[in-house]
Amino acid sequence: MRQSVFVIVAVAILAGVGAYTTCASGQADKEAASIFVKEIPPGYRDWRLISVAHEEGNLHSFAAVLGNDVAIKAYREEKLPFPDGTIIAALHYRHVPSEENNKVFGRPQSFVAGSPTNVQFMIKDSTKYAATGGWGFGHFDKDGKPGDEAFMKTCFPCHAQEKARDLVFTQYAP
Amino acid sequence: MRQSVFVIVAVAILAGVGAYTTCASGQADKEAASIFVKEIPPGYRDWRLISVAHEEGNLHSFAAVLGNDVAIKAYREEKLPFPDGTIIAALHYRHVPSEENNKVFGRPQSFVAGSPTNVQFMIKDSTKYAATGGWGFGHFDKDGKPGDEAFMKTCFPCHAQEKARDLVFTQYAP
Repeated sequence: MRQSVFVIVAVAILAGVGAYTTCASGQADKEAASIFVKEIPPGYRDWRLISVAHEEGNLHSFAAVLGNDVAIKAYREEKLPFPDGTIIAALHYRHVPSEENNKVFGRPQSFVAGSPTNVQFMIKDSTKYAATGGWGFGHFDKDGKPGDEAFMKTCFPCHAQEKARDLVFTQYAP
Repeated sequence: MRQSVFVIVAVAILAGVGAYTTCASGQADKEAASIFVKEIPPGYRDWRLISVAHEEGNLHSFAAVLGNDVAIKAYREEKLPFPDGTIIAALHYRHVPSEENNKVFGRPQSFVAGSPTNVQFMIKDSTKYAATGGWGFGHFDKDGKPGDEAFMKTCFPCHAQEKARDLVFTQYAP
């Protein structure tokens, strides 16, 4: 198990991934006919806010989590499982101190979104993505390049642990 | 000067403000006929994302910064000063660890938006808000209660230090 986790991390580093993490009990070898999201859903940057997140560890990463209309409606109606057509986008940036803000505030306390690292998607289609819990996972680096197959196989094992909320970690911020 | 800053902090504490900070050189006594935003602009929760921020110090605060259509257009066109009609909303939440996420990731690294603390606004109207650089400042706690006058007078002195970007600290996240 430990060796599998090490392989995942090594692959992530080689893949030059900015914001990625491993699960505590990652199953690197899930071999079902998984299908991943190959194209960036158009217009995602204009979608509405679900919430924000901040990952420390090795990541020093900020996330703005946005949702299309189906996603936002489902969240607001507290509807689980998410219906087909839901798309959730996690926009990742480096979590960096703001020198400028700190000067004004008079002390080091302010962190802002630095350079973008990647955008990740979850698209709900219970038929197409049956092998991965009804969700298609997508990852695109800052140049729009999709994550490779070995990397993409690591999404589902972590998300599958979030059973209570249909594999989605992010909760709605009012 | 130090005494003025102390007064600002004391007022903030008395006002029970969740997410507020002082400038390094706050001028507590600006007496011009300042006008503040008294009503929450409708529909702000549906506006588009400008960026995210995280304040440590005493605040432990997350911000999701959203903008109305005029704001988003101005940001994307890199247009300064912001035109009249621009409204920027900073939605503040407590920055809290996520036990649930940390269990999955296998270590403490994950922070999410906790309970909402306040929403703050900047509304551009060069005529109405001439005394405060063309911007109307607004602050509403989690129950929608506006900040009191003494507290509201402290917004402009900090923001006025951000001359290069028309008093707006937040930059657009791509």
